[in-house]
Amino acid sequence: MNFKLTIQYDGTDFHGWQMQGDLRTVQGELTRALSLIEGRPVVVHGSGRTDAGVHAEGQVASVQLQRGISASKLRAAINGNVSSDVRVMEAEIVDDDFHARYSAVEKTYVYRVINGPVKSPFWVRYADHESRNLDLEQMKTCAGLFLGSHDWTTFSAAQSDAENKIRTITRLEMLERLVTCSRSRLIEIEVSADGFLRYMVRSIAGTLLAVGRGELDQTVIERALTLGDRSLAGPTAPACGLTLLSVRYN
Amino acid sequence: MNFKLTIQYDGTDFHGWQMQGDLRTVQGELTRALSLIEGRPVVVHGSGRTDAGVHAEGQVASVQLQRGISASKLRAAINGNVSSDVRVMEAEIVDDDFHARYSAVEKTYVYRVINGPVKSPFWVRYADHESRNLDLEQMKTCAGLFLGSHDWTTFSAAQSDAENKIRTITRLEMLERLVTCSRSRLIEIEVSADGFLRYMVRSIAGTLLAVGRGELDQTVIERALTLGDRSLAGPTAPACGLTLLSVRYN
Repeated sequence: MNFKLTIQYDGTDFHGWQMQGDLRTVQGELTRALSLIEGRPVVVHGSGRTDAGVHAEGQVASVQLQRGISASKLRAAINGNVSSDVRVMEAEIVDDDFHARYSAVEKTYVYRVINGPVKSPFWVRYADHESRNLDLEQMKTCAGLFLGSHDWTTFSAAQSDAENKIRTITRLEMLERLVTCSRSRLIEIEVSADGFLRYMVRSIAGTLLAVGRGELDQTVIERALTLGDRSLAGPTAPACGLTLLSVRYN
Repeated sequence: MNFKLTIQYDGTDFHGWQMQGDLRTVQGELTRALSLIEGRPVVVHGSGRTDAGVHAEGQVASVQLQRGISASKLRAAINGNVSSDVRVMEAEIVDDDFHARYSAVEKTYVYRVINGPVKSPFWVRYADHESRNLDLEQMKTCAGLFLGSHDWTTFSAAQSDAENKIRTITRLEMLERLVTCSRSRLIEIEVSADGFLRYMVRSIAGTLLAVGRGELDQTVIERALTLGDRSLAGPTAPACGLTLLSVRYN
């Protein structure tokens, strides 16, 4: 049977999603638990990698099991065998041709920034911090420039192994939330696309934050997008602020 | 000069507020930083103790310093010398007779519970977890019984050293919030009083949770409050769910 798992993890203490030898990774934890349940080694497919320190509220994985087990029992069995910073929130039986990575049609990430003089301890793990007051209106104006299909070479890791660097951003929204506990505003940059290159969201977020600080403007971003000059983009924002929100399937 | 500090901490990795030898405590961290800033040992007064694992969004402390320093510089200096799980959110210069503990007139705590099949990794540190569906209406009905002045012997630590065990609860509210990331409801029990005995909020919360599970009813709580029979109260709820929200001063 083929299972679809919706997974949350606090990425702080993981070396990212993908298995890497003895390093503690989310895929590694899940593979260990599922192989134990199945009684033989299994392969767990994720919708895509997330880097060290990046969180997920709705990562999706798929796994083929021979053992007959109900979805809810599988969820409980996995959660009983992994540590509390990773949880299977939902498990469901899906068609055999479902594949967490190849069936995905859209992903949504959020980049979170605490904008205020002091970074609340409750956001240390889950948001970046900017003490200077960010110009949200300027950021919103520039956000629109990223929409649509572009070659994202400028806004991704130099060592990216993807051949085709064109991706289509279908939505980029800037939200401002008042989180009482933080005693300052929380800025969320939500971005949906048909796929993302490595560091792409963090590079876009870092560029928009530079706009908010008044260090970059619309013209520079337009040039960065059209000329592909990496030096024009803002710095890559830190991993802790990034969370994979959801993966959409047809 | 006398300073009032409003402090947040993630209590997970602290042995509570109060200094205890070499153990890592919030008062210990602040005392170390402030003594360094002042150049001689100082005494930091908190509004009251919090136990190991209990958090604070608005703990208040006061400290007398001889060194001339502005409130905002003091805040920055302390935050530069303590770890990121404790932060001074606000610092202000106050009258010499202000004392974080003796001047306090009311405190508000919140007890948080994730009520759903799976406990999200993002709430592991900050909320208790109940997988059975809680009967919120029953809990609300019983919450009213705790209002007013009572002898709280039944609902506090046996080894409490307070002589007078009468405290007045001025507000006890049950709130239900939908937290998208947790994919389940978050129940908050907010309670204000002129003071609290040790374990008092966690004992009230544990009793209300037992009501929500259908294990205790109104009659038992009435008897526990009037007869002072400890065996009638529910179990003390775990520390991680408890947060000191605010301290009120005149």
